[in-house]
Amino acid sequence: MNRESFAAGERLVSPAYVRQGCEARRSHEHLIRLLLEKGKCPENGWDESTLELFLHELAIMDSNNFLGNCGVGEREGRVASALVARRHYRLIHGIGRSGDISAVQPKAAGSSLLNKITNFLVLDMIKLAGVHTVANCFVVPMATGMSLTLCFLTLRHKRPKAKYIIWPRIDQKSCFKSMITAGFEPVVIENVLEGDELRTDLQAVKAKVQELGPDNILCIHSTTSCFAPRVPDRLEELAVICANFDIPHIVNNAYGVQSSKCMHLIQQGARVGRIDAFVQSLDKNFMVPVGGAIIAGFNDSFIQEISKMYPGRASASPSLDVLITLLSLGSNGYKKLLKERKEMFSYLSNQIKKLSEAYNERLLHTPHNPISLAVTLKTLDKHHDKAVTQLGSMLFTRQVSGARVVPLGSVQTVSGYTFRGFMSHTNNYPCAYLNAASAIGMKIQDVDLFIKRLDRCLKTVRKEQSKDSDDNYDKTEDVDIEEMALKLDNVLLDTHQDASS
Amino acid sequence: MNRESFAAGERLVSPAYVRQGCEARRSHEHLIRLLLEKGKCPENGWDESTLELFLHELAIMDSNNFLGNCGVGEREGRVASALVARRHYRLIHGIGRSGDISAVQPKAAGSSLLNKITNFLVLDMIKLAGVHTVANCFVVPMATGMSLTLCFLTLRHKRPKAKYIIWPRIDQKSCFKSMITAGFEPVVIENVLEGDELRTDLQAVKAKVQELGPDNILCIHSTTSCFAPRVPDRLEELAVICANFDIPHIVNNAYGVQSSKCMHLIQQGARVGRIDAFVQSLDKNFMVPVGGAIIAGFNDSFIQEISKMYPGRASASPSLDVLITLLSLGSNGYKKLLKERKEMFSYLSNQIKKLSEAYNERLLHTPHNPISLAVTLKTLDKHHDKAVTQLGSMLFTRQVSGARVVPLGSVQTVSGYTFRGFMSHTNNYPCAYLNAASAIGMKIQDVDLFIKRLDRCLKTVRKEQSKDSDDNYDKTEDVDIEEMALKLDNVLLDTHQDASS
Amino acid sequence: MNRESFAAGERLVSPAYVRQGCEARRSHEHLIRLLLEKGKCPENGWDESTLELFLHELAIMDSNNFLGNCGVGEREGRVASALVARRHYRLIHGIGRSGDISAVQPKAAGSSLLNKITNFLVLDMIKLAGVHTVANCFVVPMATGMSLTLCFLTLRHKRPKAKYIIWPRIDQKSCFKSMITAGFEPVVIENVLEGDELRTDLQAVKAKVQELGPDNILCIHSTTSCFAPRVPDRLEELAVICANFDIPHIVNNAYGVQSSKCMHLIQQGARVGRIDAFVQSLDKNFMVPVGGAIIAGFNDSFIQEISKMYPGRASASPSLDVLITLLSLGSNGYKKLLKERKEMFSYLSNQIKKLSEAYNERLLHTPHNPISLAVTLKTLDKHHDKAVTQLGSMLFTRQVSGARVVPLGSVQTVSGYTFRGFMSHTNNYPCAYLNAASAIGMKIQDVDLFIKRLDRCLKTVRKEQSKDSDDNYDKTEDVDIEEMALKLDNVLLDTHQDASS
Amino acid sequence: MNRESFAAGERLVSPAYVRQGCEARRSHEHLIRLLLEKGKCPENGWDESTLELFLHELAIMDSNNFLGNCGVGEREGRVASALVARRHYRLIHGIGRSGDISAVQPKAAGSSLLNKITNFLVLDMIKLAGVHTVANCFVVPMATGMSLTLCFLTLRHKRPKAKYIIWPRIDQKSCFKSMITAGFEPVVIENVLEGDELRTDLQAVKAKVQELGPDNILCIHSTTSCFAPRVPDRLEELAVICANFDIPHIVNNAYGVQSSKCMHLIQQGARVGRIDAFVQSLDKNFMVPVGGAIIAGFNDSFIQEISKMYPGRASASPSLDVLITLLSLGSNGYKKLLKERKEMFSYLSNQIKKLSEAYNERLLHTPHNPISLAVTLKTLDKHHDKAVTQLGSMLFTRQVSGARVVPLGSVQTVSGYTFRGFMSHTNNYPCAYLNAASAIGMKIQDVDLFIKRLDRCLKTVRKEQSKDSDDNYDKTEDVDIEEMALKLDNVLLDTHQDASS
Repeated sequence: MNRESFAAGERLVSPAYVRQGCEARRSHEHLIRLLLEKGKCPENGWDESTLELFLHELAIMDSNNFLGNCGVGEREGRVASALVARRHYRLIHGIGRSGDISAVQPKAAGSSLLNKITNFLVLDMIKLAGVHTVANCFVVPMATGMSLTLCFLTLRHKRPKAKYIIWPRIDQKSCFKSMITAGFEPVVIENVLEGDELRTDLQAVKAKVQELGPDNILCIHSTTSCFAPRVPDRLEELAVICANFDIPHIVNNAYGVQSSKCMHLIQQGARVGRIDAFVQSLDKNFMVPVGGAIIAGFNDSFIQEISKMYPGRASASPSLDVLITLLSLGSNGYKKLLKERKEMFSYLSNQIKKLSEAYNERLLHTPHNPISLAVTLKTLDKHHDKAVTQLGSMLFTRQVSGARVVPLGSVQTVSGYTFRGFMSHTNNYPCAYLNAASAIGMKIQDVDLFIKRLDRCLKTVRKEQSKDSDDNYDKTEDVDIEEMALKLDNVLLDTHQDASS
Repeated sequence: MNRESFAAGERLVSPAYVRQGCEARRSHEHLIRLLLEKGKCPENGWDESTLELFLHELAIMDSNNFLGNCGVGEREGRVASALVARRHYRLIHGIGRSGDISAVQPKAAGSSLLNKITNFLVLDMIKLAGVHTVANCFVVPMATGMSLTLCFLTLRHKRPKAKYIIWPRIDQKSCFKSMITAGFEPVVIENVLEGDELRTDLQAVKAKVQELGPDNILCIHSTTSCFAPRVPDRLEELAVICANFDIPHIVNNAYGVQSSKCMHLIQQGARVGRIDAFVQSLDKNFMVPVGGAIIAGFNDSFIQEISKMYPGRASASPSLDVLITLLSLGSNGYKKLLKERKEMFSYLSNQIKKLSEAYNERLLHTPHNPISLAVTLKTLDKHHDKAVTQLGSMLFTRQVSGARVVPLGSVQTVSGYTFRGFMSHTNNYPCAYLNAASAIGMKIQDVDLFIKRLDRCLKTVRKEQSKDSDDNYDKTEDVDIEEMALKLDNVLLDTHQDASS
Repeated sequence: MNRESFAAGERLVSPAYVRQGCEARRSHEHLIRLLLEKGKCPENGWDESTLELFLHELAIMDSNNFLGNCGVGEREGRVASALVARRHYRLIHGIGRSGDISAVQPKAAGSSLLNKITNFLVLDMIKLAGVHTVANCFVVPMATGMSLTLCFLTLRHKRPKAKYIIWPRIDQKSCFKSMITAGFEPVVIENVLEGDELRTDLQAVKAKVQELGPDNILCIHSTTSCFAPRVPDRLEELAVICANFDIPHIVNNAYGVQSSKCMHLIQQGARVGRIDAFVQSLDKNFMVPVGGAIIAGFNDSFIQEISKMYPGRASASPSLDVLITLLSLGSNGYKKLLKERKEMFSYLSNQIKKLSEAYNERLLHTPHNPISLAVTLKTLDKHHDKAVTQLGSMLFTRQVSGARVVPLGSVQTVSGYTFRGFMSHTNNYPCAYLNAASAIGMKIQDVDLFIKRLDRCLKTVRKEQSKDSDDNYDKTEDVDIEEMALKLDNVLLDTHQDASS
Repeated sequence: MNRESFAAGERLVSPAYVRQGCEARRSHEHLIRLLLEKGKCPENGWDESTLELFLHELAIMDSNNFLGNCGVGEREGRVASALVARRHYRLIHGIGRSGDISAVQPKAAGSSLLNKITNFLVLDMIKLAGVHTVANCFVVPMATGMSLTLCFLTLRHKRPKAKYIIWPRIDQKSCFKSMITAGFEPVVIENVLEGDELRTDLQAVKAKVQELGPDNILCIHSTTSCFAPRVPDRLEELAVICANFDIPHIVNNAYGVQSSKCMHLIQQGARVGRIDAFVQSLDKNFMVPVGGAIIAGFNDSFIQEISKMYPGRASASPSLDVLITLLSLGSNGYKKLLKERKEMFSYLSNQIKKLSEAYNERLLHTPHNPISLAVTLKTLDKHHDKAVTQLGSMLFTRQVSGARVVPLGSVQTVSGYTFRGFMSHTNNYPCAYLNAASAIGMKIQDVDLFIKRLDRCLKTVRKEQSKDSDDNYDKTEDVDIEEMALKLDNVLLDTHQDASS
């Protein structure tokens, strides 16, 4: 409402009350103005009212919402379904322009602002999370893997001779495929076992660089966040190698923003050596739906080059999600989530430790991994080899999601490359194990339920192993889930899938 | 509500009424069942009630919505903002799995179903629109350009020696960049002028193939929908060349699904020659927000290969949008939109013709282009060269979006390649012109407003040219827009952008 | 967004585009301003975007949405559920103040504006619908019956001696109860049969007035919209009687706003005689959910007195619904609905006529009833008396809602008063019949389906009567509903309810 | 989705996953079933997913949502605006039937269920809050005042001779008007001062009953929740008087559900004497929007009589709000709110005490009032009489809502009755004072902000009084609100409204 509207309002109801309302409006406007002027995440989260007002204001700046617009082009932001228009707050034009995903659209000032602001907020959060000297970043509506591919494709133009990517092994398909899809040959560096941990083999990396010749190497592709007992790569040392040999360095920081350790590694790597870009998932770090990633780096112009590599416009949906999320949380809210995650990690770790000891198993000692834990399944494995996967299935049917059993000796071929000991990041880990992680947003109830259900499943598996068929374990609590699960167990016996995803 | 709930309901209110309600529920269920069983777009659109019930049912099949779920993984579909959860109908897990964007997710049966069903519906619509023998397709949450890139990256693995892509020129940056990003060298084939039309130079294509050697060519990259006076490529002949020389053929069908002519070309090309994949925009053909494309083809296994090239999960948002849209419209609704578009094309064409003649201009004769029209701006161009871009600006400030003026002699360099006569698809088109298109969803009001505003702008530009400064033209109608626009014109004089986007 | 925000926006994206967006914003603001300044329904409906912006603006003027508010009272607009807050657009304070439902609330300038504006719009629509000289009106969140009660309670204070209300009989319980609840004694005036129509017995009214003495009579309570074969009361003549004897006159115009005839009667009554207030349903006339009414009149101060009779605040929900509806429709949209209703009345009337003749029945000739129709059920009635109610049940189970069968001779006691021939508005109508109505929002599909289903039901009932058990009637179309219905028929045989509500 | 749909789903994605999803669905269904079978508020609140599923299921049982419905009546639940339909979850038919607000509607099984269930839940909460022997209750979409009127109108039919209502004075307009509107003569019983408290004068009540004669008295109308220094009426003793003289007893329990003391009084009153009905606000006790009340009592048939007094259908909106709220909170959530309110009362009381002492004022000792507090404004009052109202205005403009200043000697006439000392519940309270309350949903921030702002305002008022114009008080915190407020103060000087509402 503008001044004339308020004046008219004063004639309809009492001027004093309308003026009070008009003043109240300014508080909302003030928050919006601060956001646009500073380009920083507000400390305190906005309430829904301000947030929706802001999105509404952005939307009416896009031509598809102009009351007098007439469209005679082939892409006019027309929407057939009112449900669809509404769920996107009528922001239909997406982000970017044919040449550049960060470019401004003449037809869509609001969406363009949304894009800019979101990238600012995300940059702010990356700094807050520990990478203080990050220079630029942008949200891209593709998952981490495809975003890594985009980085590799950008590097190709700078290093036309290069064919290889040096890659300390991490058993996650999309990391591997990101290189294959980009058309490069991954050079797998096996990890070394230090205590229980699997760590980067720096000597092997260096040797390989020298063997292949730096010019033939597109980049080193390292990883921070990963499943224990693998731990984040030795980023500092890798960054120094990259600097020395003048090789680019791309870091897969998939869900590392939530961990100050991972972020510290990146900050240090950039300080002492070379990191060209680091890529992180939106959904895993900011609790939004799957589908976006952030490409960040220390050199503004390189990040811009990547953004110019994306041909065509792109979905604004992941940007909108993270914008809403960050404005709702505020930087204080996000900090609180980070703090709670760390606390939950300690709690989960203690609870698993206790449980594992009761079953003569052991929590693997992986102090360098700040997110994921692994507990041995030696006693199961000893009896018969199916027990480990059976445990996985049982957890799945009991609605434990994200727990992941890793049996020994599984072999898998991905895009023509064969991996022995697949899922364990090494050819021959000493024992089977189970993974659990403390990721952002986890609640104490998650941990408690997990421990309870794991306890029961272990009990059951043990009994079956010892041919003790009288299944009389305590079902007093959590009975519904158990009933449901028993029904499903048979179905799953046929399909043999594990609890991992 | 299950049987027991209905029974309880009968005790609370009259059994007869509850049973009637229960029967009514079955009608909704029946529609859902038909959809899942047939995998086809319903003829009549669903009402919102059935649609939301269906989405709700899908959502509660995903583990993040299980009432008893406990998550101990790094990706559990947790959402920080209730607004975000709601706008995605609580479908958070995205689509696909690390290895394959079409794969099923154990954690998300509902999202997996959504993905499958959406791909079925879209396949159904492609058939309905004219490509009857299409074998498979999938929605990918990337714009057309990046989707083309993905196709090229997939082909690389099948044709390791190939470095070139044969590309009949079309002046649209993202098409061009899709090849650059994928790391290939575009071989530009200039178009030939036939009457007013710019058409594929088949001889040049054939000559180039022979010159470079088929094995060195990744594919021919042709285009259907485009701005007049360029017309869709001669797909049949190109497809025959591809078949003869055993070269893959990728078709950019950006906004061609809406035109039976474009679709017919693809169908014919595949019948008489070779087409490996054709890629189309979701937003431009199905009236959804920007951000998705459909990759389709005649060979099921090749399409699957492409889907396996996408590393990692992906946003379900574009799939969800098109699912909602198609279920709301029904195939009858979509057919109606196609029919109306065709009618609107005739109407627009007639109106422009009339107007152009009043100004001694001419509607270019481009019968092969079923969507876009071009009208000469000879008389403007004659006077002084800024008049053409000024017209563009004026249309923009008068809220005409999508109209695009093409002056003579503009030169642009894209990724190191220089294009003379950029925007006109040829080095030296005989005259400047203005484009307008009849795209799906266009309304008669759009046309009428456009014609009225264009008329005024032309009048004004003419007067300025003839130094006739008494600006006394008729402003009686559409005054608000005019006032607004006059204010903005000055701003734009500095920024020099054109009305195209 | 305020000026500073736009300035900041210009620095982030291009000034030209942001300014265009800012101009576009003014179009929305302009509509809002016009509404507040003129207090009239816009001719053309607003789009959702403007509407939601307006509601949002109103909401942030209420103290519960002040960002810096602290509440230390017992009623602070706190809402426990975000779903609830959202569905009310965060307008929580309701309307009115302890003393007066039309009063302004200091805590809620936005809700107060909403209340005022809604009453203005509704007043505008009443004029548009034909009562040009209406002086004032207000929306009250109570159904028509309770609103009539409120009118009677207000009159009590002006006529302390009065005990009776003169009431030309209309067989609708809530009209009757409205008088009982208010504590008055209804004096029922039986209707007279003129042709097929039941009309006001003016002589009996006048006689009764004289018999009881005008001072003992609270008011005459007349009715416009009603089920055929009753027709609207002779309002002009009743209004003259009221004027002559100085008796108030309250008109129940339940669903009469949709009919120009009913509205004309009220306008004429007020012109030639006396009408103190006329009451109409919000839901039946404006296609909103059940729950509100409009109390309107020709004397501003009397209407204000009624509004001051409502003790305490009230729900804003019905006002919000009608506000959204009228702003969406615009006065043109509402006019269109009125026009379509009239056309649909002719269509329904023709179709029923044809069908009835095929079954040797007759459409009753009730030209004074502009909404409801009645068709005889003589042939059914002749055979056995259950056939009529069976037809009602059958229509109900076949999802025909609103059709109403009226058997002969039903007797009902309401609040101690016994009505012979209840539902037929007279003690002894010549025959049983079926009612159907053409109300606002009815579609041609409603009529066609109704005729088809009625046809089938009549066929079936006839056959059963003639003991002709071979049930071979045509089920080719509309089969699903039929199947469903056959299952339900048995259930209903026990519960004996009719299709009326 | 029914069995066939799930089977089809299993063919599309893995059977194991779909079955898991199908099992998960049962958890939601189970909750719904329990609700319908037990008719009790669930202990733990439902998540939005279950809640929306339930509302959706109810909606599709209403005839306006039948896919095959055809409507030929005058009230078919047609809705013109999609926004309106959506905000009511497509439940359009309201509640009740012409004769009875609790009756079942044939056309709307879902809405009828909603009505029943809501009344059950509310009954459950009244028991939980302390009135264990309540027999029946119903939600009525009218504010407390109008609901009291409905009770009085119902009693009229049982006590045709009665003209008077005995009413221990409480200075709240709608309570008083509820009797006037119903057409009775309130007999005001002045309160007696005991210490600081104003309490029921039982002797005066008894004397008045004997003076007027029990048969001439419709009922005693007592009050629980009220502003200090008045305290809840002596319900037990009043109930005994009612029982002894055979006079009905209606209790205004406006916002008393939130206080165990108020509820205990009602429970005790009913145990030892007579209470016919007690009426409470929905919004003030259950944190929903203004507009509904609950009429409850200890005699099932009397409550039914009242529900049958409401003529016509009614808005389902307040019922829907409270249903959503209670299902979201669960009984545990509601208990928690009650507990927090009590704690906040202590906190507020301590903070006010401290502040008042700093200003030589005193927190009035009103131990029988569990919700409202009063602090003296003697020092202000002494200086000049405008200071008290000025304080009220200042608090209002500083966004303190709900604080209420009560100056000495205000006189007001309501419906012809003159009240001396209006707002203070007595003709001549010893001093001016300020009220604040701890109501359900109040947060510690509310208290802290209130104390801070009150402190400042008192400081300012004092300074002005002592002509000390150098306005140098500490503005370091809360500055925005202060700035805003200073601007508004001048406006308000003219309008003279107080901070109360």
